[in-house]
Amino acid sequence: MTKHIGKQTVQFAVPPVILSTGTAVGPYEAAGPLGDYFDTKHVDPLAGAASFEKAERQMLLDACLTALHKINATPAQMQFLLAGDLLNQIITSGFAALELTIPFFGIYGACSTAVEGLTLGSMILDGGFGERVLAATSSHNSTAERQFRYPTEYGTQRKPSSQWTVTGAGAALLGSSGLGPRITYATVGKVVDMACNDPLNLGAAMAPAAVDTLSAHFNDTGLQPLDYDLILTGDLGKVGHELAIQWMKDTQGLDLSKNYQDCGMLIYDLDDPRVGSGGSGCGCFASVVYGYVYQQLLRGNLKKVLLVATGAMHSPLSCQQGENIPCVAQAISLEM
Amino acid sequence: MTKHIGKQTVQFAVPPVILSTGTAVGPYEAAGPLGDYFDTKHVDPLAGAASFEKAERQMLLDACLTALHKINATPAQMQFLLAGDLLNQIITSGFAALELTIPFFGIYGACSTAVEGLTLGSMILDGGFGERVLAATSSHNSTAERQFRYPTEYGTQRKPSSQWTVTGAGAALLGSSGLGPRITYATVGKVVDMACNDPLNLGAAMAPAAVDTLSAHFNDTGLQPLDYDLILTGDLGKVGHELAIQWMKDTQGLDLSKNYQDCGMLIYDLDDPRVGSGGSGCGCFASVVYGYVYQQLLRGNLKKVLLVATGAMHSPLSCQQGENIPCVAQAISLEM
Repeated sequence: MTKHIGKQTVQFAVPPVILSTGTAVGPYEAAGPLGDYFDTKHVDPLAGAASFEKAERQMLLDACLTALHKINATPAQMQFLLAGDLLNQIITSGFAALELTIPFFGIYGACSTAVEGLTLGSMILDGGFGERVLAATSSHNSTAERQFRYPTEYGTQRKPSSQWTVTGAGAALLGSSGLGPRITYATVGKVVDMACNDPLNLGAAMAPAAVDTLSAHFNDTGLQPLDYDLILTGDLGKVGHELAIQWMKDTQGLDLSKNYQDCGMLIYDLDDPRVGSGGSGCGCFASVVYGYVYQQLLRGNLKKVLLVATGAMHSPLSCQQGENIPCVAQAISLEM
Repeated sequence: MTKHIGKQTVQFAVPPVILSTGTAVGPYEAAGPLGDYFDTKHVDPLAGAASFEKAERQMLLDACLTALHKINATPAQMQFLLAGDLLNQIITSGFAALELTIPFFGIYGACSTAVEGLTLGSMILDGGFGERVLAATSSHNSTAERQFRYPTEYGTQRKPSSQWTVTGAGAALLGSSGLGPRITYATVGKVVDMACNDPLNLGAAMAPAAVDTLSAHFNDTGLQPLDYDLILTGDLGKVGHELAIQWMKDTQGLDLSKNYQDCGMLIYDLDDPRVGSGGSGCGCFASVVYGYVYQQLLRGNLKKVLLVATGAMHSPLSCQQGENIPCVAQAISLEM
């Protein structure tokens, strides 16, 4: 039996299991609606470190070590680490891999990185190349804002479509067997570009990628939106969430309005004006899914979810050169 | 039978085949000792484009389309594209994926990216998730120098240990069956740091990573250096090549001096003072291996080679913050 179905989807023969997860967040995320679901809550955005970059690295390590600790595992028992983040040269992940000394695959899909890691990790396990892999990602508001937009110290005016980069990290420990939610399908995204070049409206830029991957998923598998208890995008925010519902209806005739949410709308109180359209960043999907969603699956409140992490491969340089922002979305099905 | 042997190595059950390759280079590389082996030779470093970044993208597309064309394949016949490059947000690869519309995994391992792509691509094929994948990478002297060091227009003085970033791209088209060199083993590197923080001496920074992965490869497989016709590192240059020989002897008691070469020393005439210690960049390994080495395998001049791509995950920001440069090396065995 081939494991490749349709055009972009794989179906795992022995679905890998998320054996444990770990999350670490900053104070603003800890004070938000999902605060109870996070493992490590830093009271200081610097996490006691000398720079925001070092703080982000600490949170990524927190998340990885928590996931390991929960099942009494050590880094040496992991065959591979798949990690990536928003910083140039995915340096947060590089330094975390240095500490963990696990054989390393660096990955980059902007905010789709978490699902890219779960997909490749699942292929590694189901392909017979190991029994345990760790997949992790992170973002930090103060490191991302200064790299991609303006240093936060500028106090630049934000647009209503702007999103707030999450300070947080998440890790998932995947096993080839065991108890926990299983990864049954993965739909691998194509890069799309719908002529958006506004780094202050990434939700609109990423929504077409989400729609493209969702459409592929339903076409490839024959499933319908209501086959899932929850469909969850990574960080489209209010603007992108609304667009995704509209475009799925217009282009595919599929109704997402019943059971579709977005991590960027769950992690913060959207009435807070600084949030704008919602949360974003690799840490948004990772903390919401590995914190909140994972707990809901374990408790039986959710049985089958479709996770769609969306990434805007936003390069400040190519934007300055007048180009659009290419985007990609990666999806997996999780079943309890 | 488990496919994971030793600590860091996998052995493929049905070794994937490199069915074809494509390379594209700039004029300086075309005029070098390996010029005859490259497919597309641009007479202009701008490749007719409006910016060096667009030129690099063109070369990556050239390489991918050449590899496809050689076996009369189309992008739609590829299940996955694994690509990464040196530019922030791997934007070259993102834009190439947009053109090719192949389901995309973005990867980043600095100059180790080519072998990271071959390894993950081989896992995908041997795991049963597809029949054809494309793995590609690129670099461009003028885009890399201004991002990582100084704009070339500055005419900054270079050190003898400096390396010259290759303007070039390479793509390998992997198949689950067919004729050609087969990927038999992959040894996945750990991130190492030997306290080097000089971006003008990356060969010395990367040599410990090469030694670490080479040691793991020989320990895991039980093979010896002389089991290979050629052991080839990616871009250690003269400085790193000498260090790697010395350290393999000192730490492992293994003699590399008989059959060990470095792509960075092959691609340029080392008597040219601007070359410094040798070539570097993702395009160095990719153009030398997918051009020269692949031809030698097809012609029967080489039968079994060990390829070790080395990456310095050099972040200008973390260097400015006083940190060392973490490095990683990825290895695969190719057999004809």
